[in-house]
Amino acid sequence: MTTELKKGLEGVLVAESALSDIDGDAGELYYRGYPIEALAEEATYEEVLYLLWNEDLPTAAELADFEAEMREARAVKPGIIDLLQLLADSGERPISALRSSVSMLSAEDPATGSDPTDLEAARHMGRRISAKFPTVLAAFDRLRRGKEPVEPREDLGLAANFLYMLHGTEPDPVDAEIFDKALTLHADHGLNASTFTAMVVGSTLADVYNSVTAAVAALSGPLHGGANQDVMEALLEIDEGPLTATEWIKELLDSGERIPGWGHRVYNVRDPRAKILESELRRLSNRTEDCHWLEYLEDLETHLTEEVGLPEKGVAPNVDFYSGAIYYQLGIPLDMFTAIFAMSRSTGWIGHVLEYQADNKLIRPRGRYIGPDRREFVPIEER
Amino acid sequence: MTTELKKGLEGVLVAESALSDIDGDAGELYYRGYPIEALAEEATYEEVLYLLWNEDLPTAAELADFEAEMREARAVKPGIIDLLQLLADSGERPISALRSSVSMLSAEDPATGSDPTDLEAARHMGRRISAKFPTVLAAFDRLRRGKEPVEPREDLGLAANFLYMLHGTEPDPVDAEIFDKALTLHADHGLNASTFTAMVVGSTLADVYNSVTAAVAALSGPLHGGANQDVMEALLEIDEGPLTATEWIKELLDSGERIPGWGHRVYNVRDPRAKILESELRRLSNRTEDCHWLEYLEDLETHLTEEVGLPEKGVAPNVDFYSGAIYYQLGIPLDMFTAIFAMSRSTGWIGHVLEYQADNKLIRPRGRYIGPDRREFVPIEER
Repeated sequence: MTTELKKGLEGVLVAESALSDIDGDAGELYYRGYPIEALAEEATYEEVLYLLWNEDLPTAAELADFEAEMREARAVKPGIIDLLQLLADSGERPISALRSSVSMLSAEDPATGSDPTDLEAARHMGRRISAKFPTVLAAFDRLRRGKEPVEPREDLGLAANFLYMLHGTEPDPVDAEIFDKALTLHADHGLNASTFTAMVVGSTLADVYNSVTAAVAALSGPLHGGANQDVMEALLEIDEGPLTATEWIKELLDSGERIPGWGHRVYNVRDPRAKILESELRRLSNRTEDCHWLEYLEDLETHLTEEVGLPEKGVAPNVDFYSGAIYYQLGIPLDMFTAIFAMSRSTGWIGHVLEYQADNKLIRPRGRYIGPDRREFVPIEER
Repeated sequence: MTTELKKGLEGVLVAESALSDIDGDAGELYYRGYPIEALAEEATYEEVLYLLWNEDLPTAAELADFEAEMREARAVKPGIIDLLQLLADSGERPISALRSSVSMLSAEDPATGSDPTDLEAARHMGRRISAKFPTVLAAFDRLRRGKEPVEPREDLGLAANFLYMLHGTEPDPVDAEIFDKALTLHADHGLNASTFTAMVVGSTLADVYNSVTAAVAALSGPLHGGANQDVMEALLEIDEGPLTATEWIKELLDSGERIPGWGHRVYNVRDPRAKILESELRRLSNRTEDCHWLEYLEDLETHLTEEVGLPEKGVAPNVDFYSGAIYYQLGIPLDMFTAIFAMSRSTGWIGHVLEYQADNKLIRPRGRYIGPDRREFVPIEER
């Protein structure tokens, strides 16, 4: 037994995993050996889902089966819509509404209550959770805007169907493709706090609904999710305010506040996902013929790179720097960005739980008692 | 950075805590320095709640304020009852219904959305969660039995009020007192898997609802909660079957199966809580004039001690061995035992989160990649 306190568990190796491999110095990310650039460019999000939950990319036949099961599972029962209405009426945040929805969805899953070591049942639960996430989120947002939820369509891919359910109109194919790529980029990223939470819960052999509910809870924390919303809020502030982007960032730097979307615990160079998202934002800006969000971001990056020299200090744009402007231009409300992250990262949560449970060990660290010495009880009359 | 894999984090020291101190060799448990025996015997559960969330036992005035706030917070809104009805109709387990309820309760808490570092707001959220747990659980059980929920009463203690809401009649004072003690005994026990889950979620600065929802999720796992239900199921099997308790345990031993309610990761001797619960079960059996559950347990313990010699091997009765028969005689359905555990342990979850967030550090271990080497993407047509 070590007696050294490992607060935060930084550097503590808790598990082995075959899911994602990160080279923080080179700025590279791989899912099961495949570079993230190729997956984003050439595979659909559903292929990536399959890859992360299985050992390799699917054949066309495997993908067809996999997609069919997930597409059929998209709809939710009326009780869930009632619940979402209740949450919308009370002004709940989308990420919290998602947490309650996933928790509630367990009640309608036929595999709930199956043998906790039955990983095939767990796999099917995972598929149903990922299939229903977009439905729940889109319905919640429509309900709080006083609109009727839109039923999922089985003929659209997961990304396109989400945008369809959110807006009520079929998305432009370029929009759907860009959103699909964004989902791929966020699908997994090692043992971050929410993935680790999912694993801790899964290690008790609680079912996948429990792991995912807990992971959503963890993602809702400001130290974990939410930075792309901060970036977009900054862009809106620049857009509405008197300062140019460069003047704005100078002021922020002077104030000593954190720069949203810059720096990463793992990457010392530009996050490979940021690079892809920048080029996707350019594509989207060309399509919408509105480049001003991209220009703000580029002005910020130019100043932080050329004048401040942050990249030389190992601080560079991360995945959150360009994603906010993409989601915003896709018509996704700012306060849903973290929930969109959850929708995508559920892939990694489920993948890591399935992997860990296949060779399970209860996760239970220890604490050191530093409280009062043993003392005698004093009855309330004498206190 | 260590490169040694610490799967399960066994022996890894993740935090310092002033809440509970366990001596596994001596069979002793202390909350903030006070022996568990004195707290169970002389303090109410509410005093113990106060102790674990603050630095010391309350004065009479402090307790009065604390109790007043919690008693007022007992009722839940009609929307929660509708939700519980929906969950009851779909046959959800009580522990899962509790998970969804806690998650939903965040929507009606005025402190949700307050500054995540505001520990005073967190403390008030914790009080409201603990105050509403019994209400939600009792209502869920009544709804699934086709009965109307019973409104909480503000003039009863937490334990008595729970039994009142569950049964619709005021409990015998002895029953209420025994249940109060059982809640005290389960209120905290170091960094078990659910408490650790609460801390991991809390370390992202997500609010207390997130931590508690995630902890309930962890507790629902068969490797964590649930052993007292197994013990009671064994007693019912003995009661309904042809074998005596001694014959039954001999058969179980021959089959090589695990003995429910015996052995503990931390205690090598009799769990101090088991000793207290045995004497409370005796008291309850005297009151109900029904000693046969107690007798079965004593026959089992006598055989396992005198014939099998388990205690000499460091395997002794744990907290779950005597609690099941108590809950059963108090009229609590077997499948609610884990949820009762959650109701009590929420004290520890909230206490540890408050303590950790006061000097917070994001909990994020690392994983070791053991997947495929880097490989080239193969388009779907060529797979």
